[in-house]
Amino acid sequence: MPFNLHPTLAKDSLLAVKVGSMQIRLMDDSRYFWLIIVPETDATELHQLDSDLSNELWGLVRHLGQKLKDHTRADKINNAAIGNLVPQLHFHVVARHKSDPDWPKPIWGAGKPLPLSEADQALRLATVQSWVGNL
Amino acid sequence: MPFNLHPTLAKDSLLAVKVGSMQIRLMDDSRYFWLIIVPETDATELHQLDSDLSNELWGLVRHLGQKLKDHTRADKINNAAIGNLVPQLHFHVVARHKSDPDWPKPIWGAGKPLPLSEADQALRLATVQSWVGNL
Repeated sequence: MPFNLHPTLAKDSLLAVKVGSMQIRLMDDSRYFWLIIVPETDATELHQLDSDLSNELWGLVRHLGQKLKDHTRADKINNAAIGNLVPQLHFHVVARHKSDPDWPKPIWGAGKPLPLSEADQALRLATVQSWVGNL
Repeated sequence: MPFNLHPTLAKDSLLAVKVGSMQIRLMDDSRYFWLIIVPETDATELHQLDSDLSNELWGLVRHLGQKLKDHTRADKINNAAIGNLVPQLHFHVVARHKSDPDWPKPIWGAGKPLPLSEADQALRLATVQSWVGNL
């Protein structure tokens, strides 16, 4: 079966790069440097992933968390797989700063996204691509 | 260095069982069947875990998610490592139901905990212990 991205994820985020079976997507939101990893699978829960997909996902969560932290000098990386509204499995990796609008609260469901300019989109996408260039 | 549990985690949760270097803790909150995994380490970010701790943690996240889902017939398992308020690394695995008080919103920072009765604490702790008995 072909993989069909959930329309909410398609609307809110941009594909940065694909690594194996994982789409690394950039949320179109200038408030945070916010990535989403979407395994191309019909699983909806982490425990439903087979071991290859599970290992790929976890490796990327850790790798992207480190890169985001270093690049943005984040105070904290926030990680989550929630999926109450969008059941398609997706894992958030988000750089948080004490100066950001919702600190220290979680960002899910908080406020409205502030879309990135085209230039900032391009810059962030290229940055993320550079992080996985040698994976 | 001895491991010292953060006082907020100590206040809000009960130790169910320890598996390897991971404390599996039960949040004292009857609104949700809510577990927290606390690696006994001074790391604050997932990418700072060495590979043994990382593998232990991820294996438990998936295992406990499956057990929680089956046991509670959850509509969704919610997973997160946030840590903006409590920097000590801890990973949430929570059973969510469409009938629960905050659905579909995330639970972190939402409302006030409703402590478990002593009988329900004991029952949940024994249940969680049974899930890891053969790990």
